[in-house]
Amino acid sequence: MMVLAGLWAVLLCACVLGHPKQTTSGGEDMRNCSVTPPYLPVTAVNTTARLKNLRQQMASKLLDAYIVPDTDAHMSEYIAKHDERRWWISGFSGSAGNAVVSKGKAALWTDSRYWIQAERQMDCNWELHKQVGTLPMATWILAEVPAGGQIGFDPFLFSIDTWKSFELHLQGSNRSLVPITDNLVDQVWGTERPPLPSQPIYYLQENFTGSTWQDKVTGIRNQMQKHAKAPTAVLLSALDETAWLFNLRSNDIPYNPFFYSYTLLTNSSIRLFVNASRLGDDVRRYLSSDCTGPMCVQIEDYNQIQKHVTEYVKGDVRVWLGTEYTTYGLYGVIPKEKLVEDSYSPVMVAKSVKNEKEQELLKAAHVRDAVAVIRYLVWLEKNVPRGSVNEFSGAEQVDKFRREEAFSAGPSFETISASGLNAALAHYSPTKEIHRNLSQNEMYLLDSGGQYWDGTTDITRTVHWGIPSSFQKEAYTRVLMGNIDLSRLVFPTSTSGRVVEAFARRALWKAGLNYGHGTGHGIGNFLSVHEWPVGFQSNNIAMTKGMFTSIEPGYYQDGAFGIRLEDVALVVEAKTKYGTSYLTFEVVSLVPYSRNLIDTHLLLPEQLEYLNQYHKTIQEKIGPELQKRKLEEEYQWLLKNTEPLGHSSSRAHQPASLTILAAATLVLALGQNL
Amino acid sequence: MMVLAGLWAVLLCACVLGHPKQTTSGGEDMRNCSVTPPYLPVTAVNTTARLKNLRQQMASKLLDAYIVPDTDAHMSEYIAKHDERRWWISGFSGSAGNAVVSKGKAALWTDSRYWIQAERQMDCNWELHKQVGTLPMATWILAEVPAGGQIGFDPFLFSIDTWKSFELHLQGSNRSLVPITDNLVDQVWGTERPPLPSQPIYYLQENFTGSTWQDKVTGIRNQMQKHAKAPTAVLLSALDETAWLFNLRSNDIPYNPFFYSYTLLTNSSIRLFVNASRLGDDVRRYLSSDCTGPMCVQIEDYNQIQKHVTEYVKGDVRVWLGTEYTTYGLYGVIPKEKLVEDSYSPVMVAKSVKNEKEQELLKAAHVRDAVAVIRYLVWLEKNVPRGSVNEFSGAEQVDKFRREEAFSAGPSFETISASGLNAALAHYSPTKEIHRNLSQNEMYLLDSGGQYWDGTTDITRTVHWGIPSSFQKEAYTRVLMGNIDLSRLVFPTSTSGRVVEAFARRALWKAGLNYGHGTGHGIGNFLSVHEWPVGFQSNNIAMTKGMFTSIEPGYYQDGAFGIRLEDVALVVEAKTKYGTSYLTFEVVSLVPYSRNLIDTHLLLPEQLEYLNQYHKTIQEKIGPELQKRKLEEEYQWLLKNTEPLGHSSSRAHQPASLTILAAATLVLALGQNL
Repeated sequence: MMVLAGLWAVLLCACVLGHPKQTTSGGEDMRNCSVTPPYLPVTAVNTTARLKNLRQQMASKLLDAYIVPDTDAHMSEYIAKHDERRWWISGFSGSAGNAVVSKGKAALWTDSRYWIQAERQMDCNWELHKQVGTLPMATWILAEVPAGGQIGFDPFLFSIDTWKSFELHLQGSNRSLVPITDNLVDQVWGTERPPLPSQPIYYLQENFTGSTWQDKVTGIRNQMQKHAKAPTAVLLSALDETAWLFNLRSNDIPYNPFFYSYTLLTNSSIRLFVNASRLGDDVRRYLSSDCTGPMCVQIEDYNQIQKHVTEYVKGDVRVWLGTEYTTYGLYGVIPKEKLVEDSYSPVMVAKSVKNEKEQELLKAAHVRDAVAVIRYLVWLEKNVPRGSVNEFSGAEQVDKFRREEAFSAGPSFETISASGLNAALAHYSPTKEIHRNLSQNEMYLLDSGGQYWDGTTDITRTVHWGIPSSFQKEAYTRVLMGNIDLSRLVFPTSTSGRVVEAFARRALWKAGLNYGHGTGHGIGNFLSVHEWPVGFQSNNIAMTKGMFTSIEPGYYQDGAFGIRLEDVALVVEAKTKYGTSYLTFEVVSLVPYSRNLIDTHLLLPEQLEYLNQYHKTIQEKIGPELQKRKLEEEYQWLLKNTEPLGHSSSRAHQPASLTILAAATLVLALGQNL
Repeated sequence: MMVLAGLWAVLLCACVLGHPKQTTSGGEDMRNCSVTPPYLPVTAVNTTARLKNLRQQMASKLLDAYIVPDTDAHMSEYIAKHDERRWWISGFSGSAGNAVVSKGKAALWTDSRYWIQAERQMDCNWELHKQVGTLPMATWILAEVPAGGQIGFDPFLFSIDTWKSFELHLQGSNRSLVPITDNLVDQVWGTERPPLPSQPIYYLQENFTGSTWQDKVTGIRNQMQKHAKAPTAVLLSALDETAWLFNLRSNDIPYNPFFYSYTLLTNSSIRLFVNASRLGDDVRRYLSSDCTGPMCVQIEDYNQIQKHVTEYVKGDVRVWLGTEYTTYGLYGVIPKEKLVEDSYSPVMVAKSVKNEKEQELLKAAHVRDAVAVIRYLVWLEKNVPRGSVNEFSGAEQVDKFRREEAFSAGPSFETISASGLNAALAHYSPTKEIHRNLSQNEMYLLDSGGQYWDGTTDITRTVHWGIPSSFQKEAYTRVLMGNIDLSRLVFPTSTSGRVVEAFARRALWKAGLNYGHGTGHGIGNFLSVHEWPVGFQSNNIAMTKGMFTSIEPGYYQDGAFGIRLEDVALVVEAKTKYGTSYLTFEVVSLVPYSRNLIDTHLLLPEQLEYLNQYHKTIQEKIGPELQKRKLEEEYQWLLKNTEPLGHSSSRAHQPASLTILAAATLVLALGQNL
């Protein structure tokens, strides 16, 4: 699944891809606050009472404004209902958007993907600001809050950077940021608030883990010992850090098998902060939680983390943490000279490089995942012409096929099942109520993934069951060329993704086309589908052998269609003629591309050779799996869809072998050494 | 001329390219401080008395250590002898390296290019540290300076970032950084110190300028007015900012036609801080310096800048500056709330985009420069076989040819004229004493450029007059492929160089080869040969139509040979099939590549087509120029060296036209739309 690459991407979406044909003057499904009385659609949420109560709380703390961010205390990408404070106070349910409530006003900031949704869901208590970042919010606050005023925020919902950024913008303004540990929205929300998740926490069987938690703890402690600044402890805030370290899972966050937790790993102790009632006797035994030695996991109450860290840092200690996932609530209690700061904790970095067993597990998950996706593509080929499939029923069907695979634990994110013009909308997902029928006359984009006990998957394919236009074929082929060019790139060790991601764009750029999202992201072993800091974004760490990343160029024609081709790839050593220490990618997503959308004349001989080799690999790895399952129809489909393509393939009826021979000759003559 | 891309490149040089085969255990031309008495080569400088005097100065200011950086008060890349403080105090004359003197020790930090040189030039008073960046220096200072100690520095020799970095590293350490405005080295240096340059400052004739200084001032003031933070003044510290703004030049810095100056441009006044005695009456008239209105340039004493800014910021003002070129000496006197900070000043950014006249001027300079370089290549072809050319005499010869061109103002940097293994050394330049003979059996690399009244040039060509090895040919061809792939790239407006520079490396990477320096830099109109912030480095600004940048991949085989192919290119609009707002490059350096070093079988049809088109352009643009000058021999050489190359060119005697036809057909058949 693609990730918008920060502000740049949002602006690109807005300006180049043309999403903001969405106007806010709006149809009747959107609010109109400029008439008297204001017009509100049925989807709008009445927030008058909520805001009144919140302002009472603010008054009791002498606050002139209160900031309500969209994240949780672990800087999670997906959050539990329990943490949907911004949604509850504003009515707006989009995944990105921050709110500020002052004495007289309430304002929400979100990006172009969500402007229409916000106009549908918010009542006229709320201003909508079509910007992102802290600067516009700070500017608004400076205008709303008088000199000498106080702005409250929950220190556990502010990343260190967010806090620093607000501090900077308000510096010298005679307005002060005041941390309020008891969240004011929570107090107003009261009994309506969804409870904290409380399902049991379980440990993974050894055959699904790369190493034991004891080995992982030892590895991290070795890093602490070797570190020049000699940290005495590592503090883990991101939920997947703790889940990975102890090989524990649960189900607190939609699509993410995590549980609310912190870890403080010192050189002589291990403390896991969690709701203790969720740990059964077996898990306690597994964690050796009945002792206090260096390899015993002491269970502490989740809510005691700040207090415990505050106590711990009174000693002669140094706490190593990753600033990207630690909140100001914890960062702020550690004296500066006792901090060992990196962008990412050593656990985050260790997790990003999969050992051989983890690589095998993730590859195995992708083989089964390919079976599910191929079953779906075959099912579509039969059912779409009958007119019986819509985006939502299709999404349900692919989820069903995935659940039938061994070790399935559901989808890894909300399936993006988008037909025709809907595929040009970023992060579109159909609902039971609102969806489009799939048709032979439209392109269809499926971006979906699964959670399996051995790995997390994420793949996008774009198909057309009728006659695509020549522009659709050209766009699809250029997206494919970008995918191929990046996938087969050879690059030195320690190269950052950001300096090579343009290889996925060049073929599009050449024709004056582009896409407005990131080119790829890391992925976990039954963990996050977006597992940072691996990927091609500007803040991602350098590529290392053993990392997995998605590669996912696309093209979006506003109001018409969308194309994305996403594969997950493993970073492997490359054999080169002269050098050592070079890397390349091994694609582990194994589903054929759409032959009727490929214009082979656009492909360079080397690109065609790569494509045919990829399809051959799919045939070799997925074919036996389909045969084993007696999925004969799917097996025949696979054979047909992995046949070698030649440059002359558009001239029908030419024997394939001849075509290939011709192509191979050209490859020898021309492309040999590029 | 290539630029090492920060720490990464230095490390790459050290680790991959193998420079540090340079050991410091050393031959007899290097010091040996581990014997008694220490062995010092004749090149070593006795710094005992200098250090003793400096330490007396330090004691009088109660300092435990004193930092001596390698720059001047304008963060210049090249500095005048007057500013060579680090050289004078340490004996080490390399262009990069910082020193710290404590009560008992003296230490120098420099990168791998300079380790041998430092061992030759420093006496045993000095430790050599083979690291770069502020962290190793700060770590050393923390070990050397006791708690409560004070570390002195000259605030006018510290960039804002350097100051912030030292502050950060020393924070909480109970050691304080103390700005000392009177430079302590200067006080010890005394009368030996070279005087401040004092040659006349002159203005450029109108036919050599893109616009009048009045138009430039108006343009900057327009930007101030439109700016959200409403700055009331722009402060210019970089020497080329003031030179560009007023179309003034002089000769203070080697190879750079600048003069010591600052500018404070407010919405109602213009103040030029300079040694007033260097301005003749004509220049004063040109600047309207006899009045005080908004379009009059008031001349102030160079040394009064800090005092003046301090006074100015007492008012209701906001000063806009570029942090990259402003020292802590000026930054520190401006209250934070009165600062409008960007990385680069609006003048720096305006200067980076050349208007049409500036583009024409710079192109014209490159045409004449090509004539000089071609004359030199022809001269080499005749004289190298006679054994009568060495690196130094060659450098003199190319400088001579350049000086014979119209509007010449000498070389734009010290010519890199390097034969055989010397070409693998970063920034090698021959001297009258130490140089290598040019030979038909070795490759030869020439990286040189000229200053002309209309433009600055910079070009690198690599040649071989005998039979190159197949590896040399492959390496040369892959470097050329990188140059071509980046030069012909089509990319969206506002793309940063850093995200596309890998296109210049891919063909090398593919074979396991690479280079350890940056891929290109901006260049000025009779200004800097490295004109930031344009280029492919990580801190460069986005590419915009009208910018000029070098494109210069290379390959270096330690102990054997070096290859670099550098051209200057203009950023121009690209015509694409579907999109608008796309850019590409137009190469303005017009000297043919070396035909005997190109393995055409490695080239893709599109690369070959591009190469032939480039050579055709050279023939069309430089041919008439050579004929006009009656340089018949050079003209014949040009015709021969710009003939189209074909894939079959290695099969001799095939008619060129047929070869091209064949290649063109292949292009049509295969590469058409890539």
